[in-house]
Amino acid sequence: MLRWLTAGESHGPELVAIIEGLPAGIPVSLDSIRADLARRKLGYGRGSRMKFEEDQLTISGGVRHGESLGSPIALRIGNTEWPKWVEVMSPEKVEATETSRGRNAPLTRPRPGHADLVGMQKYGFDEARPILERASARETAARVALGAVARSFLGELGIELVSHTLSIGPVRVPEGAALPKPGDVDALDADPLRCFDAATSARMVAEVNDAKHTGDTLGGVVEVLAYNLPPGLGSHVHWDRRLDGQLAQALMGIQAIKGVEIGDGFLTTTRRGSEAHDELFQIGDEILRSSDKAGGTEGGMSTGTVLRVRAGMKPIATVPHSLRTVDVATGEAAGAHHQRSDVCAVPAAGVVAEAMVALVLANSVLEKFGGDSIEETRRNLKAYLAAIPTELR
Amino acid sequence: MLRWLTAGESHGPELVAIIEGLPAGIPVSLDSIRADLARRKLGYGRGSRMKFEEDQLTISGGVRHGESLGSPIALRIGNTEWPKWVEVMSPEKVEATETSRGRNAPLTRPRPGHADLVGMQKYGFDEARPILERASARETAARVALGAVARSFLGELGIELVSHTLSIGPVRVPEGAALPKPGDVDALDADPLRCFDAATSARMVAEVNDAKHTGDTLGGVVEVLAYNLPPGLGSHVHWDRRLDGQLAQALMGIQAIKGVEIGDGFLTTTRRGSEAHDELFQIGDEILRSSDKAGGTEGGMSTGTVLRVRAGMKPIATVPHSLRTVDVATGEAAGAHHQRSDVCAVPAAGVVAEAMVALVLANSVLEKFGGDSIEETRRNLKAYLAAIPTELR
Amino acid sequence: MLRWLTAGESHGPELVAIIEGLPAGIPVSLDSIRADLARRKLGYGRGSRMKFEEDQLTISGGVRHGESLGSPIALRIGNTEWPKWVEVMSPEKVEATETSRGRNAPLTRPRPGHADLVGMQKYGFDEARPILERASARETAARVALGAVARSFLGELGIELVSHTLSIGPVRVPEGAALPKPGDVDALDADPLRCFDAATSARMVAEVNDAKHTGDTLGGVVEVLAYNLPPGLGSHVHWDRRLDGQLAQALMGIQAIKGVEIGDGFLTTTRRGSEAHDELFQIGDEILRSSDKAGGTEGGMSTGTVLRVRAGMKPIATVPHSLRTVDVATGEAAGAHHQRSDVCAVPAAGVVAEAMVALVLANSVLEKFGGDSIEETRRNLKAYLAAIPTELR
Amino acid sequence: MLRWLTAGESHGPELVAIIEGLPAGIPVSLDSIRADLARRKLGYGRGSRMKFEEDQLTISGGVRHGESLGSPIALRIGNTEWPKWVEVMSPEKVEATETSRGRNAPLTRPRPGHADLVGMQKYGFDEARPILERASARETAARVALGAVARSFLGELGIELVSHTLSIGPVRVPEGAALPKPGDVDALDADPLRCFDAATSARMVAEVNDAKHTGDTLGGVVEVLAYNLPPGLGSHVHWDRRLDGQLAQALMGIQAIKGVEIGDGFLTTTRRGSEAHDELFQIGDEILRSSDKAGGTEGGMSTGTVLRVRAGMKPIATVPHSLRTVDVATGEAAGAHHQRSDVCAVPAAGVVAEAMVALVLANSVLEKFGGDSIEETRRNLKAYLAAIPTELR
Repeated sequence: MLRWLTAGESHGPELVAIIEGLPAGIPVSLDSIRADLARRKLGYGRGSRMKFEEDQLTISGGVRHGESLGSPIALRIGNTEWPKWVEVMSPEKVEATETSRGRNAPLTRPRPGHADLVGMQKYGFDEARPILERASARETAARVALGAVARSFLGELGIELVSHTLSIGPVRVPEGAALPKPGDVDALDADPLRCFDAATSARMVAEVNDAKHTGDTLGGVVEVLAYNLPPGLGSHVHWDRRLDGQLAQALMGIQAIKGVEIGDGFLTTTRRGSEAHDELFQIGDEILRSSDKAGGTEGGMSTGTVLRVRAGMKPIATVPHSLRTVDVATGEAAGAHHQRSDVCAVPAAGVVAEAMVALVLANSVLEKFGGDSIEETRRNLKAYLAAIPTELR
Repeated sequence: MLRWLTAGESHGPELVAIIEGLPAGIPVSLDSIRADLARRKLGYGRGSRMKFEEDQLTISGGVRHGESLGSPIALRIGNTEWPKWVEVMSPEKVEATETSRGRNAPLTRPRPGHADLVGMQKYGFDEARPILERASARETAARVALGAVARSFLGELGIELVSHTLSIGPVRVPEGAALPKPGDVDALDADPLRCFDAATSARMVAEVNDAKHTGDTLGGVVEVLAYNLPPGLGSHVHWDRRLDGQLAQALMGIQAIKGVEIGDGFLTTTRRGSEAHDELFQIGDEILRSSDKAGGTEGGMSTGTVLRVRAGMKPIATVPHSLRTVDVATGEAAGAHHQRSDVCAVPAAGVVAEAMVALVLANSVLEKFGGDSIEETRRNLKAYLAAIPTELR
Repeated sequence: MLRWLTAGESHGPELVAIIEGLPAGIPVSLDSIRADLARRKLGYGRGSRMKFEEDQLTISGGVRHGESLGSPIALRIGNTEWPKWVEVMSPEKVEATETSRGRNAPLTRPRPGHADLVGMQKYGFDEARPILERASARETAARVALGAVARSFLGELGIELVSHTLSIGPVRVPEGAALPKPGDVDALDADPLRCFDAATSARMVAEVNDAKHTGDTLGGVVEVLAYNLPPGLGSHVHWDRRLDGQLAQALMGIQAIKGVEIGDGFLTTTRRGSEAHDELFQIGDEILRSSDKAGGTEGGMSTGTVLRVRAGMKPIATVPHSLRTVDVATGEAAGAHHQRSDVCAVPAAGVVAEAMVALVLANSVLEKFGGDSIEETRRNLKAYLAAIPTELR
Repeated sequence: MLRWLTAGESHGPELVAIIEGLPAGIPVSLDSIRADLARRKLGYGRGSRMKFEEDQLTISGGVRHGESLGSPIALRIGNTEWPKWVEVMSPEKVEATETSRGRNAPLTRPRPGHADLVGMQKYGFDEARPILERASARETAARVALGAVARSFLGELGIELVSHTLSIGPVRVPEGAALPKPGDVDALDADPLRCFDAATSARMVAEVNDAKHTGDTLGGVVEVLAYNLPPGLGSHVHWDRRLDGQLAQALMGIQAIKGVEIGDGFLTTTRRGSEAHDELFQIGDEILRSSDKAGGTEGGMSTGTVLRVRAGMKPIATVPHSLRTVDVATGEAAGAHHQRSDVCAVPAAGVVAEAMVALVLANSVLEKFGGDSIEETRRNLKAYLAAIPTELR
């Protein structure tokens, strides 16, 4: 059982994350985690915050001399802007006279499409600061850092993840386009929108430019692929053991995600049964599937073909020409606070989705194979694959 | 914390379900659970099994004199066909000579789109019977029974659920059609496809007829609505506390579901930010939203408007003119076993989805409001609503 | 992750239990479970209920042809006295006129030492029936049934459990007496008090006789031993991964248990450090411990020596010459309801404790070794043991 | 549901802890947490490390302006000795030439009574450093810090905890001695051994002196009391909902604890039933218990009387004249590494036990009463107490 918690507010001193349950011997380095944190800032259409949001990464525990110890791993990501926010976000009490000015002014105009209003209702606050600080997508940096560790674990077992952008607003990669492979990740990261189809990428850039000029924002769809999974992660025996369900929660649990698909997803619902499934053939010594419409799961289990999951992100809710809201201090109509200048964060969402998928898969691997050292987990995995009878491979 | 487990094989003696964590004093009756079990069999395009699959329901514990006791509730759903399956599915050893004939013959032709092949690989079986018995959608009857109890709990708090069919194959209710309300449930259940739009329903019937004539099967999309939720179920503070994520897992965890949406879902990803969010207005003493594109959640919390979630079901994988597979006993190409004659199970999936949503919401309600008796939970809920300041309502 | 739930009231129609997460291929038979259920009724000093409480056992799911399927296993234990209790414990509403007589009379005199009073306060009942029905030790039959399945799983891995009685009231097996081994279980079960020391057993019988004559009841201490555990179950890395802590909860979670010890337990607290620990020696090719004061765990992990845990049971709270209480219907002093005639249930508590230990160990084994079939778990366990370097064995 | 994780090695840069699930509005201050961290170092018989182990405390998230936000709370406790350990415990790779000298030398003589040997077997290490760094009781500082937050939450509801020392080695507070109350905490903390009985405390000091002179170590027993609990925390309905079981795991999950008792614990097992239970009386308008032998729980639920739980700690396993072991690098007999100079850590164990009890109770309170702000939890608690009918109070 893999467990992990993150903490920290958007403008607080730092994000903190702990992951518990990984075996010993996994390579973990500041550089590899930093690389993923940098990938999270990629994408045409990001605002200025991404530039100054340099990530000061620290490993606080669970790693020694470049390898995991089997104990909980703790990571911290410092906020380089913290000195500007010390008073506003101080954990300690500050003088009352100082708390009502400038950055510290109460945020009483809850933003549509955000946690602001309902968060105030739920937690009993009269302004949105205590809510939006945690609801912010800044928190996903902690997930990406943990995901980098999980990816290193999976990598030791030969499992590799790739994420890419399928659509930005209405601009979408054509159905049936080639899927990126692990070797394509650098090229993807170099693309302005992390899109694998060059022609579509160019149209996406134009779409972002257009949205920017009209003071608007964009959403889109990302896809995460996992290569070289063993068959049999997850299970059909109970609903919450299903890998597809766990992936769905992990992806829908990312800020701004409103839809999740496995494989061809909703498109499959429009097909007839004779056209919707991946038939089986014996080719040489191996049983192969004719296609991968199912996205690499059957009965809630990985089949061993490429896992393919998608997440749909709504457009950024902090729209430059602000949305209408109510100032709860006065009861009057107002424009929503506007604190951010991204046009589109879809490419980054792909990196976050990749991290979430990595965390889910790492847990599934441990559930099936156990292991307290990477050698033990790997040995168990290999022995399992070797024990599948020839006629079932 | 609400926990529940189901057990039982498709052709075994019975399904068994236990739910633990519900307060005392919830009305629970055989009749109300049976009514939901009957609704699960609804829908034009179901095969003959639905007719003989009469549900012999028993309450084994946790309920006395029509009300829950606060202790775990156990339900059993007997299999009326069990006498035919005693030998095949006997928990006790049976004579070897009897185990290789007729119903008992090994199922060595794994069906595409099912758990068969990967289940055999994972669990170490050389035939599919031990896998398909549990992977079968028959298990959803246990979920529906538990969901009926959860719905009764929610009903005591004024929360009501409605499910309906949005599409069958390519035939879909027009965007912007009216949503069914709790008072419409009987009408929905009377519709051949549990579709609220009469014209679309007629086209769906034609689609089912056509698929049947061509020996094919159909999928579709269902939507579940929850009325009268309080704001603040779920939370933005940690990914796995988000209500949207929990709903996504619960729906994707239903057999054959390949996509999940909250509110307008993937459609939202194609809109620009200025058109994609529900703006806030003060109307009289109340803050109201201009629309419900978000589907009743913001920041992973219920907003108090109608919750709206969707699940996309692939077409039934047991297609009458069978899909191609491999006989793993011989290594030769073969047609897949075909054991079922439904053309379309989408209307039933709506009822199952409703049950899953009820179970998730019941858990969320208990997490926020606690309570060991229905009076206590209701009192805490009411006090919470009353304590929200006027300016935030 | 192994999960299990039980349901059912003491005088309800049946107990139901589901266990989820065990691998496929474990031998499960009605006979072996029945044997453990019978052992739970052993012991000098049990009242008449034990005689008529015949256990009607059914396996409802998860087992086929004598072996587990990997799916959830459901067990039922019918109440042979149910016909007498149909009206009192009916899940359905019964006529109001019938509900206030005889067996059905409200139990308004909460029994000291029982859940009665606080249960009424917590769950909002004005009589104790809805509480005591579930709080009763009858529920442990469900645990024993599940424990029998867990023991079979452990047995396939060579792990064997033994439980025995250490003390009855003030009569206690001498410190340093020999420990029973797996081969001694039949002899233990044949002893009137499941005590391994014949002389002490005779004194225990006399103690029970004396208590019976004076209308009183007795408690005592039981010990569970686990042989042939691999080193490394549980972990030191997080408090709730510690095997000793998990065992403590499992044992303290049995009705009437008030104390738990690992190894020499509280006795160890009185020793000095130089006398309290198990020193290490190289004997031939093996590292051995000089003693087993620690009870087979170090740092919250099994060491591979005999696991030894104890549970202390208070005397039965339903004392023949009844304890003083208050009738909550009248506010007047009263004698507590007296519904049971056991003098001592300690021998049975040993069998229940054994079941709980089996369930904890089965979970720990799966956490470390994973596996979806017994072959896979066993293969992983063996490979782990083989991989421990010679110098560390 | 309250969740928490700790991370960090004994000589690593810092300990990190995250707690998730607490409501908003709880007072949290560095000073109050520091005060508890200081209490953890109390006690006659501690070695020099306690003096230099100054705790550099940071709140990284979840708290603003002195109150919790409802989001996860993260705490860090810096290791002031870190500069000396940078190379030994560096998370990054260090030059191989530097890793084999002095502090960095492999620890190949596993210490009896510690996690060393079995940890090496389990996690695949050839020396004990990677194990003992996490198994060390230094980690309890993180628990104490989290416990301080939980105690503040409980304090807002009127619930107060007290811990004290019952015995040091064979020296024990007489049976029936007065229990310390919340007002006695300062006096307790001022006592050399946190013992409430002055005469016993003096004998304990003598015992510590004697052990020190003979180069030995001591264990003992601590007790935690909780005042002003509402009735009905925990539950009888399922074994793992029982408060006594949860407390048992929490206490046994502390390093070096080998026994746990609720109330009179094992002493109760020697009493007859007529003398072992707390009888009920109506005194004025209230139902009162004649005694508190049960320690404040019945049926696994808090009764509302004083909760009383005990933990027995073995003597420190790092004994000055070292225990015998084997050097696994050479296979030769050796003396165990000796890195610490405490004679007795029992008084500190009381403070740690208090923290663990606080965390368990905080979770139980949230399970029963819910609440996302301290106002909401308090309102629900008060309404529950007010709703208990007069005749049941």
